[in-house]
Amino acid sequence: MKATADLQVIPLGAGVSVRKEIEQIVGLLKQHDFILETHAAGTNMEGELADILAAVQQIHEAMHAKGSVRLISYLKLETRTDKVPTLAGKRL
Amino acid sequence: MKATADLQVIPLGAGVSVRKEIEQIVGLLKQHDFILETHAAGTNMEGELADILAAVQQIHEAMHAKGSVRLISYLKLETRTDKVPTLAGKRL
Amino acid sequence: MKATADLQVIPLGAGVSVRKEIEQIVGLLKQHDFILETHAAGTNMEGELADILAAVQQIHEAMHAKGSVRLISYLKLETRTDKVPTLAGKRL
Amino acid sequence: MKATADLQVIPLGAGVSVRKEIEQIVGLLKQHDFILETHAAGTNMEGELADILAAVQQIHEAMHAKGSVRLISYLKLETRTDKVPTLAGKRL
Repeated sequence: MKATADLQVIPLGAGVSVRKEIEQIVGLLKQHDFILETHAAGTNMEGELADILAAVQQIHEAMHAKGSVRLISYLKLETRTDKVPTLAGKRL
Repeated sequence: MKATADLQVIPLGAGVSVRKEIEQIVGLLKQHDFILETHAAGTNMEGELADILAAVQQIHEAMHAKGSVRLISYLKLETRTDKVPTLAGKRL
Repeated sequence: MKATADLQVIPLGAGVSVRKEIEQIVGLLKQHDFILETHAAGTNMEGELADILAAVQQIHEAMHAKGSVRLISYLKLETRTDKVPTLAGKRL
Repeated sequence: MKATADLQVIPLGAGVSVRKEIEQIVGLLKQHDFILETHAAGTNMEGELADILAAVQQIHEAMHAKGSVRLISYLKLETRTDKVPTLAGKRL
């Protein structure tokens, strides 16, 4: 099942600036076969629902392995059966 | 890896009231081995990260099978390595 | 106009544990005339839409005055015209 | 106090497609003096914190006046005191 998603991951305990961690997270997402659109408050993704959820898990595991102590992800996840959901179809 | 999560699923196209769908979704969550705490804007969950993500996928698939045309999930997902994350530990 | 809301405020740069800040934020909310229900991932609120939004602004200003350097609020805000929205009415 | 925000407004009861409502909401935002960046799952905004919150209230009131029965807004709101928060500064 295809899905679109908007993912923001917040590392807690990494200090006020979390740019380094965000760059690592987007780097991890780019290793997958998703259509990605980064924006100021997250990254929009288009792909298989199962792959998106697996990527979220991988990001938590990989960022903890790199030293992140606490991570909160904010995920908006959308599926629909009347048509294939795409990022392009959600643009104004 | 243990995680806590807060899940809200919004069915679009089901009308103004979505209580029936919310009850079905919480019913699906109760079939899992999670600690659950429903609240006015979602359901807090405690369990294995992989199980929580699998439950989100199952909910989308099951609700579409029941006739939901469009679903948006809002998931807050938290993991930490300094201690085991629990719902009890997040209460004030 | 009456509204219900779910507010979570994340202080960045305050370290891994943010319990002290969360307690201060809930303390600020209790000074208002809202119905409040704290849960593991935020606080549900019922009150006037304008009052809820003013409280969010007050929290950002007050927490910065107390020393918080960076704050991200996650607010779910709901209004409806077919009936008065209440937290009680959203419980399962 | 300057802020950045990411706003998504979901009309419930408007059917499966909510494009018309989303276009109206973005149209309302454009009447303000914000820097706006629409994306597939919301609109990023940069402006005064008080103005952003007032715009959210105005959107709820205006959309209800146009006939929307139930509205849920998802707002991410960020402020910081170490530098002026901007959308440009949040881009990778």
